[in-house]
Amino acid sequence: MSYRDLNISTVLIISPMYGELKRLIEKENVEQSFRFKPEDEVTDEDLDWADAVACFNTQTDFNYSKVKWVHSLGAGVDRFLHNKTWDKEVLLTRTICSFGQRIAEYTLSYVLQDLQHHQLFQKDGREKLWKPRTPGLLKNSKAVIYGTGEIGQVTAKVLSQFAMEVYGVSRSGRKKDFFKKVFTIDQQEHTDQSEWKDADYIINTLPLTVETEALFNRQFFSQFTEAGFINVGRGASVDEEALIEALDDDRLRFAVLDVFKEEPLPSGHPFWEHPNITITPHISAVTTADEAVACFIDTLRNIERNEALVNQVDIKKGY
Amino acid sequence: MSYRDLNISTVLIISPMYGELKRLIEKENVEQSFRFKPEDEVTDEDLDWADAVACFNTQTDFNYSKVKWVHSLGAGVDRFLHNKTWDKEVLLTRTICSFGQRIAEYTLSYVLQDLQHHQLFQKDGREKLWKPRTPGLLKNSKAVIYGTGEIGQVTAKVLSQFAMEVYGVSRSGRKKDFFKKVFTIDQQEHTDQSEWKDADYIINTLPLTVETEALFNRQFFSQFTEAGFINVGRGASVDEEALIEALDDDRLRFAVLDVFKEEPLPSGHPFWEHPNITITPHISAVTTADEAVACFIDTLRNIERNEALVNQVDIKKGY
Repeated sequence: MSYRDLNISTVLIISPMYGELKRLIEKENVEQSFRFKPEDEVTDEDLDWADAVACFNTQTDFNYSKVKWVHSLGAGVDRFLHNKTWDKEVLLTRTICSFGQRIAEYTLSYVLQDLQHHQLFQKDGREKLWKPRTPGLLKNSKAVIYGTGEIGQVTAKVLSQFAMEVYGVSRSGRKKDFFKKVFTIDQQEHTDQSEWKDADYIINTLPLTVETEALFNRQFFSQFTEAGFINVGRGASVDEEALIEALDDDRLRFAVLDVFKEEPLPSGHPFWEHPNITITPHISAVTTADEAVACFIDTLRNIERNEALVNQVDIKKGY
Repeated sequence: MSYRDLNISTVLIISPMYGELKRLIEKENVEQSFRFKPEDEVTDEDLDWADAVACFNTQTDFNYSKVKWVHSLGAGVDRFLHNKTWDKEVLLTRTICSFGQRIAEYTLSYVLQDLQHHQLFQKDGREKLWKPRTPGLLKNSKAVIYGTGEIGQVTAKVLSQFAMEVYGVSRSGRKKDFFKKVFTIDQQEHTDQSEWKDADYIINTLPLTVETEALFNRQFFSQFTEAGFINVGRGASVDEEALIEALDDDRLRFAVLDVFKEEPLPSGHPFWEHPNITITPHISAVTTADEAVACFIDTLRNIERNEALVNQVDIKKGY
C-alpha cells in the first residue's frame, strides 16, 4: 500500500481530553484540518467529513469504514478488532511510543515492592514492630514475560540489567534480546515445566486476541507454586475465577492487576477485597496527551512521506 | 604497613549468628584457628588469645588494643570509631561487598513506590475507588545522593541507567562516574540552591563521622520544597525533630528511614506514627552470612598475600 496515496487532509480526534490534544496539535506545523470532539458529540457528518480518526477506548462502535485511516491513541487495539469485523481497506495504527519504558518501570516497582517486603514492613510499622527480614535481590529472581514485543522487550531489558533471569513466551518463539530463552505459547504447555514452576514473577504484556483470551486459566496457574502475577496486558486474557483460586491455593503469592475484563472494575468485584491482589486503574501505560500527540504526529508524517509504519496493526494477528 | 607481618593465626568471631558463620567458614580452606561466640560469652581470655576479631554492632566496647586486626562484619564502623578512641596500631577493615547493589535496589524500590503512587492506589483500593493517576517516570526525576563512595556510586549508577538526573555530595567534591556533578558538603551550603531545591529525592548514604553528625538539620531541610528523604546511612546524621518539622511544613513529601539514632527504634518514638514516614528495621544493607564470610575471607587472604586492602578504614576520616 502506498501510504501517501491515502491523501489525509481531514482528521477527527475523539477523546475526553480533546481540548488538551487540540492545544498540543495546534503547536505542531501540520497542514491538515482537524475537528476535536468528545465522544458524545461525534455525528455521522463528522465521520463523512474525516479522512482519518484518532481515538482511544470509545464506548461507541463508530463506522470506521467511512475513513481511510484509524489511529489508536493507546497501545491496545482490541477495542477495534476483538470480536469485531474490520474493513481491511482501512489502515489501523496504534501508539507504541513510551509504553515500553512506562510498563517496565511499573513492573519493576511491583517486583521490588515484593523483594523489599514493603507490605510486611508497612504492617510491622503499624504495630511498631522492629522485625528485620532480608530483602531479596533482583539477580536471584526469575521472571517469565508473556509477549516479547516492544513492551515485553523493554521490560526484559530493564529486569535483565539487574541480572535477573528472564524468559519470554510469544506466538513465534523467536529469540529476542534480553530473554534467556523464548518459548512459543504451545511449547509452554508441553514443556516439562522445570524452567517454569519456580518462576518468581509471571508478567503478562500480551495483546487481547482470540489466542490470548483466557490464556491464564486454571491449567496455566496449576504449573506454579510461588509466583507473583503481574498483568499489564489485557484483563480478558485472565480467567478471573481461576486467578482467585490460584491465590487461595497458594499457587500464586500475589497478583498486581492493571487491566480488567470490565473497566472501571465494578465496585462489587471480588478482586477489590482480596488481600493478595493489588489493583491499579489501568495506568501502567497511560498515554499522556504529550505522548499521544507525539506518536500521532510521527505517524501522520510517516504516512505523508510514504515511510514504513512500525506501528501499523496486522489486522489478522490483531496487534 | 606490611599486612603479612601481622601474622594472623587466631581469629575470634563475635556474632549472634556465630553458628551459621562457623558452618560457612569451615567450608573454606583456611589455616587459622577460630573461636565462634555470641557476644555475652566472650571473655578477656578470648581477646588475649585472638590475633584478630570479626564482629558487628556489639553492645560491649571490647578492648580491641589486645588484637592486631578488627574486621567489621557490616559496612559501618561508627560503632568502633565515633566518639571513641582507636588504637592506631590496630588494623580496621569493613565489609564492602554487595552493599552497593543492596542499597541501590532498596532505594530504587522506594523511589518507584513514590513515582508509581503505590500508597495512593492502595488507599483507593481499600475504598474500591477507580481513580487513574499518571505515574511519573524516572527520567523526569532528580536525586541528590550524599556520599559518593561504593554505596552512593552504585545507587547513582542504577538511577542514572534510567536517565534520572543524579547529583552527588561528598567531602572532596571529586567528580565521579554516574553523577552529573559532585559538590562538597561545604559548597552545598553556599550554593544558590538552584540545583537543589527542586530535587525529588535526597538520599543519604554517608557514614557517621564528626562532620556528618546532625548534618541533616533544620537549615538543611529548609532548602527543599517537595523532596522525599531516604536515609540508608546513619540515623545520627539526622536531626530527628527537624525532620518531623520538615515533613509537617511540607518541605519534605515523605521520609523512608532504615537507620536510627537508637536501634531498635523505641516503641514510643514519634517516627512510628507519622503518616509520611516509612520505617524499615536496618535491612537495606543487611549482611547475609554468606556475604559476610565471603568478604571476611577475601580480606584475610589479602592480608596473608600482603595485597592492597580496598576495605581498610581510614581511622582519621572515620570510614
